[in-house]
Amino acid sequence: MPDTIFSKIIAGEIPCHRVYEDEFVLAFLDINPLAAGHTLVIPKESVATVGELSDESAAAVGRVLPRICRAVMKATRTNAYNILQNNGADAHQEVMHVHFHIIPKYADRPSGQDGLGIGWRPGKLDSDVGVEMAKRIAAEIG
Amino acid sequence: MPDTIFSKIIAGEIPCHRVYEDEFVLAFLDINPLAAGHTLVIPKESVATVGELSDESAAAVGRVLPRICRAVMKATRTNAYNILQNNGADAHQEVMHVHFHIIPKYADRPSGQDGLGIGWRPGKLDSDVGVEMAKRIAAEIG
Repeated sequence: MPDTIFSKIIAGEIPCHRVYEDEFVLAFLDINPLAAGHTLVIPKESVATVGELSDESAAAVGRVLPRICRAVMKATRTNAYNILQNNGADAHQEVMHVHFHIIPKYADRPSGQDGLGIGWRPGKLDSDVGVEMAKRIAAEIG
Repeated sequence: MPDTIFSKIIAGEIPCHRVYEDEFVLAFLDINPLAAGHTLVIPKESVATVGELSDESAAAVGRVLPRICRAVMKATRTNAYNILQNNGADAHQEVMHVHFHIIPKYADRPSGQDGLGIGWRPGKLDSDVGVEMAKRIAAEIG
């Protein structure tokens, strides 16, 4: 089990601005927010990436996401938000304990903090490549 | 219920490169990928945003995310990936049916497609502001 700042927060050794907690999940404010109300939702299971999560833990996080998103929207009076979850240092992960960012988007009333910036340069999926890739991924799921 | 290209895919009226399907969830390749193996995971429940999802549907999506992530990583031989989920046109949502992007990051061997671009300009959470905001969000969760 990785020992990170988040395991210390779960253990109560480091304080947080907690917004939700149950047997499997803790949610609290990001202290370096991209926008007011930027919230982190983490499993108590201490693993680095989503791929390492148990089904039970991942389901518990999924189950409470809607409730937490609704509450963040109401509390911040925003309507749009991004959920971002990074896995691996190459993908911008800094704390090596699974965390989902809920980041409000204050598009209609700029707040000095502009929320998540998204860079999107899509390609086009060739049909034959898609058939082959889908087959490979499906085979790995088993 | 919004009628989108994704509800047509779920209904089988439009084909997709399917990688996974169960009672609640469908996963298939994005036809405009940010990187090879870019996969979409969607609930069959037809709502626009995560905040509108039922607990059951959200838990089902959460439960299978680890399996699908592991399979995408194995099939693409990548180690890092981003999960992005956008809610609202202001937050970059294009299809108004909940979808989670799993986007591999080919950091060690550029593939021409560089995956998700992330713009990150964090502020600093003032402690008093944090106490107040956490209280407001927690109160909304109830």
